[in-house]
Amino acid sequence: MASARIGPGRTPTGLRRLALTDADRDMRDLFAEWCRDAGCAVTVDGMGNMFARRPGTDEALPPVLVGSHLDTQIAGGRYDGILGVLAALEIVRTLNDAGVRTRRAIEIVNWTNEEGARFQPPMLGSAVFSGVRTLEWAHARADDTGRTVGEELRRIGYAGTAPVGGRVVDAYFELHIEQGPLLDDKGIPVGVVAGTYGVRGMNVEVRGETAHSGPTPMAARRNALVGAAMLIVAVNEIGWSYAPEGKATTSRIEVWPNLAGILPDYAKVTVDVRHPDAGTVERMVGDVRRAMSDCAHRAQVEMAIVETWQFGSERFDPELVDLLRRTATRLGAPSLDLPSQAGHDAYYVSRVAPTAMIFTPCDRGISHNENESTTVADSLPGVNVLLHAVLDRAGL
Amino acid sequence: MASARIGPGRTPTGLRRLALTDADRDMRDLFAEWCRDAGCAVTVDGMGNMFARRPGTDEALPPVLVGSHLDTQIAGGRYDGILGVLAALEIVRTLNDAGVRTRRAIEIVNWTNEEGARFQPPMLGSAVFSGVRTLEWAHARADDTGRTVGEELRRIGYAGTAPVGGRVVDAYFELHIEQGPLLDDKGIPVGVVAGTYGVRGMNVEVRGETAHSGPTPMAARRNALVGAAMLIVAVNEIGWSYAPEGKATTSRIEVWPNLAGILPDYAKVTVDVRHPDAGTVERMVGDVRRAMSDCAHRAQVEMAIVETWQFGSERFDPELVDLLRRTATRLGAPSLDLPSQAGHDAYYVSRVAPTAMIFTPCDRGISHNENESTTVADSLPGVNVLLHAVLDRAGL
Repeated sequence: MASARIGPGRTPTGLRRLALTDADRDMRDLFAEWCRDAGCAVTVDGMGNMFARRPGTDEALPPVLVGSHLDTQIAGGRYDGILGVLAALEIVRTLNDAGVRTRRAIEIVNWTNEEGARFQPPMLGSAVFSGVRTLEWAHARADDTGRTVGEELRRIGYAGTAPVGGRVVDAYFELHIEQGPLLDDKGIPVGVVAGTYGVRGMNVEVRGETAHSGPTPMAARRNALVGAAMLIVAVNEIGWSYAPEGKATTSRIEVWPNLAGILPDYAKVTVDVRHPDAGTVERMVGDVRRAMSDCAHRAQVEMAIVETWQFGSERFDPELVDLLRRTATRLGAPSLDLPSQAGHDAYYVSRVAPTAMIFTPCDRGISHNENESTTVADSLPGVNVLLHAVLDRAGL
Repeated sequence: MASARIGPGRTPTGLRRLALTDADRDMRDLFAEWCRDAGCAVTVDGMGNMFARRPGTDEALPPVLVGSHLDTQIAGGRYDGILGVLAALEIVRTLNDAGVRTRRAIEIVNWTNEEGARFQPPMLGSAVFSGVRTLEWAHARADDTGRTVGEELRRIGYAGTAPVGGRVVDAYFELHIEQGPLLDDKGIPVGVVAGTYGVRGMNVEVRGETAHSGPTPMAARRNALVGAAMLIVAVNEIGWSYAPEGKATTSRIEVWPNLAGILPDYAKVTVDVRHPDAGTVERMVGDVRRAMSDCAHRAQVEMAIVETWQFGSERFDPELVDLLRRTATRLGAPSLDLPSQAGHDAYYVSRVAPTAMIFTPCDRGISHNENESTTVADSLPGVNVLLHAVLDRAGL
């Protein structure tokens, strides 16, 4: 609830704490203070990723990382990401309260710009940590007003000096609200993330020609917005044709000049397709390409894919996944194996360290929405599983 | 060509001289200097409309107004509007050179924000002059960055002290490039605007719900962008079903939050439909309303018309229209009666003064485009008809 007061949204339950804004800085400052109060040393790397280290009895051993992200969507809620960071802090506080020392150090991590709501793409801090993107590339990403990640890190005082990644990590655990309705529906408190959805994203540029919207006959028009709209409708239909497992989305469009009275000559549409089966994701991408060709023809415009990204082919560490299942059983917490449908920092980290995720229930699966909701009672079993799995890995 | 250097566009032949920007001010300053050099007294009214008055021998008589606008689209050309203002200046210079005095004063007018490219709606200066909008309403119109017409008029020094409208005008003439291909196709230099297209415009708001684009199943989505895209496609089809005379356009969309990863809960689409037959325009509006209902249902969103505008029901003064035809015949200039398909300040002025328009050819009818082109030779016959019609009306 202290976090829920920083970066207020449009509604009393909403948050708008975009990465590297003043609100993000205020939350980071508070988080760092809490971590120091819990006896941790706080380090910030060149991407602004924050690591709060609780020393182990054998500091030569690689640490166990636990965390998630503190940034939110523009119309986000109180729990997406935040619950995972604060669960990690709660674990450290609990070990402190119980006077338990671990062999390995435990590090609470807050990844920078997970949401991608201000700077695209999402999961930017963990991408650099894992070697998926370079630091220079990430620093040059600009928001819609032209401000870059590098500038904003310096402005809010979180351009750290620690190297980004390049060190051995024993294990990474991330707890997150499910962002799907299964746990809430079934009344099961712990989800063990056993698989991921394949996600393929792309930016499609549409090029037409400006003309006066009054006299220009329909047959002579090359309206980029009409071409983009045809593609958005087609992508939606592709999603339906692979439903209920498949999804196809457009949630962003840019248009130029985007004015009354003049047909626009440019549009850019962000498309993504998702499916648990990797081969099916490829088929969906093929469908999008065919739709582009058809829509471009019908609207008399040109369309091209100018940028692509993908994630979700990652597989979590079988040993850690099994550890989570066994820990839940041992603690008597009902658990369920679930696929992850959204992107998470854990995907990227899994490329450089053994990784696993725990899901906890959220009301009707609602997320990226100001009505995101969960309770301490619903979250506690998952946080306990996290604590004991971390403890198992860190060793006594 | 002096005007074509003020407010350069993306290409060497393009102009970007949005209303009340520094470029607009520079052009206004130059225009005022030219008018004073031609012996005119320059007055600016509270809307920034500029009137350069060449006195008559009987100053008690209402003046003859001649002009158009000096602002351009964001990717506009050198002639749309500008040709009409500079043709009026050329008439005054010609009368000066010939030592001709007229009974009535002749006033060259430059209307503020005709294009509507920066501040919506278009034809704002003439709308207030004609009593269609109030001065207070017009001053409060904001651009996309929140700057208002009133603030920007003061900033560039064109918030004049003269009352806006409310005075008797003997006649208003406006010369304009055709913005259609007929004169260029047929090689006829003079178009007499004999009718107008009915135009009905509206802003449609689409309301859905934000949700995570990953886990939210297709069936649970209320993506406002998808609803808006369905409407854009439907409006385009409505245009085709009334082609070639009818047109239906969407050229502007706003989306919130307009980000990757989150389904948007809001979109606003600007729609307009045009047809020379007033009854048919109403049928097209009915089609748009039915499409809204259908698209809202299919996308699981709500749609509502939140703002409407219309023009084109105006009829120009039969006596002035006939004067233009007779003048063309007398001067041996081939002429053609044409409908006007775009909006013009003359529409609004026709509500308070006898009004007529002359069209001159432009290359392939291209306008609101950086390749807008015409020649002195193609324009001269129209400007001559304008001169002699003004002279007839102003009297010797």
